[in-house]
Amino acid sequence: MTEPYTLILLRHGQSTWNKSNQFTGWVDVRLTELGAAEAQRGGELLAETGLLPDVLHTSVLTRAIQTANIALEAADRLWIPVKRSWRLNERHYGALQGKNKAETLEEFGEEQFMLWRRSFDVPPPPLADDDEYSQVGDPRYADIDGDVPRTESLKLVIDRMMPYWFDEIVPDLKAGKTVLVTAHGNSLRGLVKHLDGISDADIAELNIPTGIPLVYRIGEDLMPVGPGEYLDPEAAAAGAAAVASQGKK
Amino acid sequence: MTEPYTLILLRHGQSTWNKSNQFTGWVDVRLTELGAAEAQRGGELLAETGLLPDVLHTSVLTRAIQTANIALEAADRLWIPVKRSWRLNERHYGALQGKNKAETLEEFGEEQFMLWRRSFDVPPPPLADDDEYSQVGDPRYADIDGDVPRTESLKLVIDRMMPYWFDEIVPDLKAGKTVLVTAHGNSLRGLVKHLDGISDADIAELNIPTGIPLVYRIGEDLMPVGPGEYLDPEAAAAGAAAVASQGKK
Repeated sequence: MTEPYTLILLRHGQSTWNKSNQFTGWVDVRLTELGAAEAQRGGELLAETGLLPDVLHTSVLTRAIQTANIALEAADRLWIPVKRSWRLNERHYGALQGKNKAETLEEFGEEQFMLWRRSFDVPPPPLADDDEYSQVGDPRYADIDGDVPRTESLKLVIDRMMPYWFDEIVPDLKAGKTVLVTAHGNSLRGLVKHLDGISDADIAELNIPTGIPLVYRIGEDLMPVGPGEYLDPEAAAAGAAAVASQGKK
Repeated sequence: MTEPYTLILLRHGQSTWNKSNQFTGWVDVRLTELGAAEAQRGGELLAETGLLPDVLHTSVLTRAIQTANIALEAADRLWIPVKRSWRLNERHYGALQGKNKAETLEEFGEEQFMLWRRSFDVPPPPLADDDEYSQVGDPRYADIDGDVPRTESLKLVIDRMMPYWFDEIVPDLKAGKTVLVTAHGNSLRGLVKHLDGISDADIAELNIPTGIPLVYRIGEDLMPVGPGEYLDPEAAAAGAAAVASQGKK
């Protein structure tokens, strides 16, 4: 029960739709071979630095679960307890789900495109319930109070993610466990916004690279005692730049 | 909440020590390529028959967890909740852990060999705490009341497995969930002994093949309403025969 507690955030590796440059959101695509290799490297970094998770939290999206399974196998920690929740899912991208990013940029122009991608509280238009990429009726969301989202802004992601932080992750930290959270660009941006006290305006500039563990030491007040640190800072900087340039042809 | 409830048992695929013909027990070896292919086929059988698990229970041994991860990925159900417990672990093989089965048969003779392998309540000699294959001090067993086993008979496996059946698996069944249990030859033999009412003497003859889902329909009294059925009966019969002949050179 010693603090500072250790929190490790890991964004999933490249998915098939990252590769094809499509908006993904809640569509349940899988990792590419590169994505699997990123997850493997992430797990090796955990093993090399001796940061061995005691418990895992993931979204219910396959690409995050694959990332966790591969990383934990590489770190020889497949046996740790795991909890999954839709509250850690990627942002629901509404009617953009399935669309090519470059084509969307061309069709709607840079201003509208960046508003949807990076504004704090402007969600894209809602996805139709009969769209092939809708999650309405998906049994994995049977436990959502009310109904599945049809679109989300980053603000809405934070609204549904933060209860999970306080109710599920914080108790594990307070029990002295090293916690691994394997999730997505926007659910992790939301958590980092809270931990680093980033403003609604400045969060637009934050890009989290894929597959590189980001480690926070958390104090008794459940806030970081210092800056989050990537286990491979050089690769993290290159990865963040790559994320920032997404959508460009 | 309709019964009969559905219970699916899945024994892990071939491990590196199955292949090298060594007693494994609680030693945490991994699947071979063949073992991974068996798990893949097991998951495909679930998908083809529409028997989609709602919840997973595994041991804390990597080969069972790998089997579950591969099978659930094949069945597109990686997202279901999972609970892991040492109570579903393989039988602890005591001082035999790590030993070659054929060499053990030769050294001790068929009578002693079969007594250790198939008697109901005769455990092998205990494993020394300083043996390289001891689990004493392994952090994954920090939650075991008392201490990790040094050896187990099938009877001792059943004694520590059955509380998990009643406390953790039965509540999921009663909630109407299709339950997948991914575990080991002896923990599953213990469960099948209970479900099928097999005597202490007759259980010696029961061999469970690897990688083939065994499906039970469970009634309100939490006992099967009919015989368990393998999803690939022909492969199951061949697999059971292969298990029975283990140890022979």
